[in-house]
Amino acid sequence: MGVVTLSTDFGTRDPYVGAMKGAILAVNPDVILTDLSHDLPPQDVRAGSYLLRHATSCFPPGTIHLAVVDPGVGSTRRGLVVDDGQHLWVGPDNGLFSHVLARPSARTFELTNPALRRDVVSATFHGRDMFAPAAAHFSMGVDPSEAGPSINDPVRLPDISCQQASGGLMGHIQHIDHFGNLVTSIGLQDLAGMESATIVVGQTRMAGWSTTYADVGPGQPLALIGSGGMLEISIRDGNAARQLDLTRGTEVLVQTFCENSE
Amino acid sequence: MGVVTLSTDFGTRDPYVGAMKGAILAVNPDVILTDLSHDLPPQDVRAGSYLLRHATSCFPPGTIHLAVVDPGVGSTRRGLVVDDGQHLWVGPDNGLFSHVLARPSARTFELTNPALRRDVVSATFHGRDMFAPAAAHFSMGVDPSEAGPSINDPVRLPDISCQQASGGLMGHIQHIDHFGNLVTSIGLQDLAGMESATIVVGQTRMAGWSTTYADVGPGQPLALIGSGGMLEISIRDGNAARQLDLTRGTEVLVQTFCENSE
Amino acid sequence: MGVVTLSTDFGTRDPYVGAMKGAILAVNPDVILTDLSHDLPPQDVRAGSYLLRHATSCFPPGTIHLAVVDPGVGSTRRGLVVDDGQHLWVGPDNGLFSHVLARPSARTFELTNPALRRDVVSATFHGRDMFAPAAAHFSMGVDPSEAGPSINDPVRLPDISCQQASGGLMGHIQHIDHFGNLVTSIGLQDLAGMESATIVVGQTRMAGWSTTYADVGPGQPLALIGSGGMLEISIRDGNAARQLDLTRGTEVLVQTFCENSE
Repeated sequence: MGVVTLSTDFGTRDPYVGAMKGAILAVNPDVILTDLSHDLPPQDVRAGSYLLRHATSCFPPGTIHLAVVDPGVGSTRRGLVVDDGQHLWVGPDNGLFSHVLARPSARTFELTNPALRRDVVSATFHGRDMFAPAAAHFSMGVDPSEAGPSINDPVRLPDISCQQASGGLMGHIQHIDHFGNLVTSIGLQDLAGMESATIVVGQTRMAGWSTTYADVGPGQPLALIGSGGMLEISIRDGNAARQLDLTRGTEVLVQTFCENSE
Repeated sequence: MGVVTLSTDFGTRDPYVGAMKGAILAVNPDVILTDLSHDLPPQDVRAGSYLLRHATSCFPPGTIHLAVVDPGVGSTRRGLVVDDGQHLWVGPDNGLFSHVLARPSARTFELTNPALRRDVVSATFHGRDMFAPAAAHFSMGVDPSEAGPSINDPVRLPDISCQQASGGLMGHIQHIDHFGNLVTSIGLQDLAGMESATIVVGQTRMAGWSTTYADVGPGQPLALIGSGGMLEISIRDGNAARQLDLTRGTEVLVQTFCENSE
Repeated sequence: MGVVTLSTDFGTRDPYVGAMKGAILAVNPDVILTDLSHDLPPQDVRAGSYLLRHATSCFPPGTIHLAVVDPGVGSTRRGLVVDDGQHLWVGPDNGLFSHVLARPSARTFELTNPALRRDVVSATFHGRDMFAPAAAHFSMGVDPSEAGPSINDPVRLPDISCQQASGGLMGHIQHIDHFGNLVTSIGLQDLAGMESATIVVGQTRMAGWSTTYADVGPGQPLALIGSGGMLEISIRDGNAARQLDLTRGTEVLVQTFCENSE
């Protein structure tokens, strides 16, 4: 295998994506490069973590995921390699791999081995000079333990899932997609056993969750379990983010008892 | 051969494009993935049909074109496989392949074979769960007839070409490109034998069509046969859509006789 | 080897990128296609030249760089092939390869050989009909000298570097990146021997250049040598273009003597 995926906040106008691809191909010209996204919001580690979780699950075993959202480049933040037993993950140690680190199988290494980087490493572009060549070496069979010392304190973002709250669950909107769907931090497994819940977000209340958009009429809001296994708020044939005027971070409640008072 | 092209309205910020690529590589890790566009206007089947017609003609025989613009996902709309004798086309049966279906060689199959999909199929992401794996199987040599039953009533969009009108032809602007060129639904073959036509769109009249932008002065409008074989309206060194203030759907007339009255 | 990179101003909504990829794969189905950018500003040859310089240096020897920003298509502008001894470059002769042409090793050929193009060449899309197939043929080992006659007067853009000025160097902002960093036309080698320089751009003065963003406090401007070896103006954790309100072309001075008067 030799698939390397790329996820960055570099945008698509600058030379940076191309430079990183060149640095990978210089090490492994037989690699299969696969773009996941280069349009992550600039410096938005949380958005990167979300992308990585939901774009990668179908890839074949042995895939290398190279990700660079790196506001701390040039400071003392570490480079990181995560091995979750299926895939390898390479990038800065700043929370970008929080969802992967939550897996019990995850082993983590600091990326320090000079043999896996370019001869000269700039202070501002570790994506090209450290992470890209390391990913290329891993795609050729280098073992992740050769990255550097094993570590047990990688940076993890807070609030990437949901909590028990009085009467149910409390999560938040963690992503707004291109179609205006509001993806929450509440997963299918969190909802196990909740049959008659009410979902509350902003001024909108929904009785339970649907299985498909066609369960409600055009223009109506609905909650459903989206394709990534998370509870989502949508408007059929509409744009929920715009029509409900909600933003990332907004609280979402799943209430499992009836309220008596209005 | 193993080229699979991808065309979607998913945008480039969400996990959906990556998830679809992973689902293809999971079936055929040797496939060559080629992005055509992921920036189709959301839910715009007509724009998708136009892209597919004009982006694909040069690809080698045996190419698989996977396309997902799918407002009806989760409803009863069918999955479709089209074999035009050169290429295979995989996606929802909603008009997305209208231009391909107009070819006499086109044979169509409903995509029903459970062996060609993922084990679990979500209600909201058939791109990943049905169409991507099917495309991957076809890229490994599975015959399109294995998709499911042959059908003869695939959905076709109206008005994808032009009609005879009194004194000439009537078409419309079917696409506005990145440079502001207005691509009409009138093709070179429709214009056969028309030597001295006048082209009318909005307030602009042009005497015949040019062969290159250099045929008129900078800032002047011109009609020409574009690289896709369609009549286009452009402004040399300018942006016709903006400067002529015209939108998709606007009527375009090709008049072959002289009018006596003003 | 068979890597072909693609750089265009076509955007990502139109059929043009796909059509070019198809035209390459039709000649060499084993080619490795690598997108550098399709979001160059429309018709902006200078931006294309900058991209090509800074995105390509890491690619392995033998890489072919296909680039199309082509406002003069259909006029008498020539097609060009440049061989710099490491990579080949294919596209219009309009200044797009100015940075490459500045290399002493560069040899240039006019692209005239009809065997390297499609059977029918449109007047408006040489990217698909001439440059793409030529790049594909070169990726299969065709020698660049087979492109056509050697030429010694390829078009070169003015002002792609910096000049000596009284008291130092004068350059300009040649690119503003996605993060708002201002990349100047002044390179590390131009600054050799300047230890105590002052950098002046607009209303901002900086004492020398830093090696990393962390050298100044958050929100502070700094000059540093960027990852491409050019002097850049940035704001730590900020957006220099927006906060300093500066645009491409703005003069940048590097002053090496102390001024006595305010």
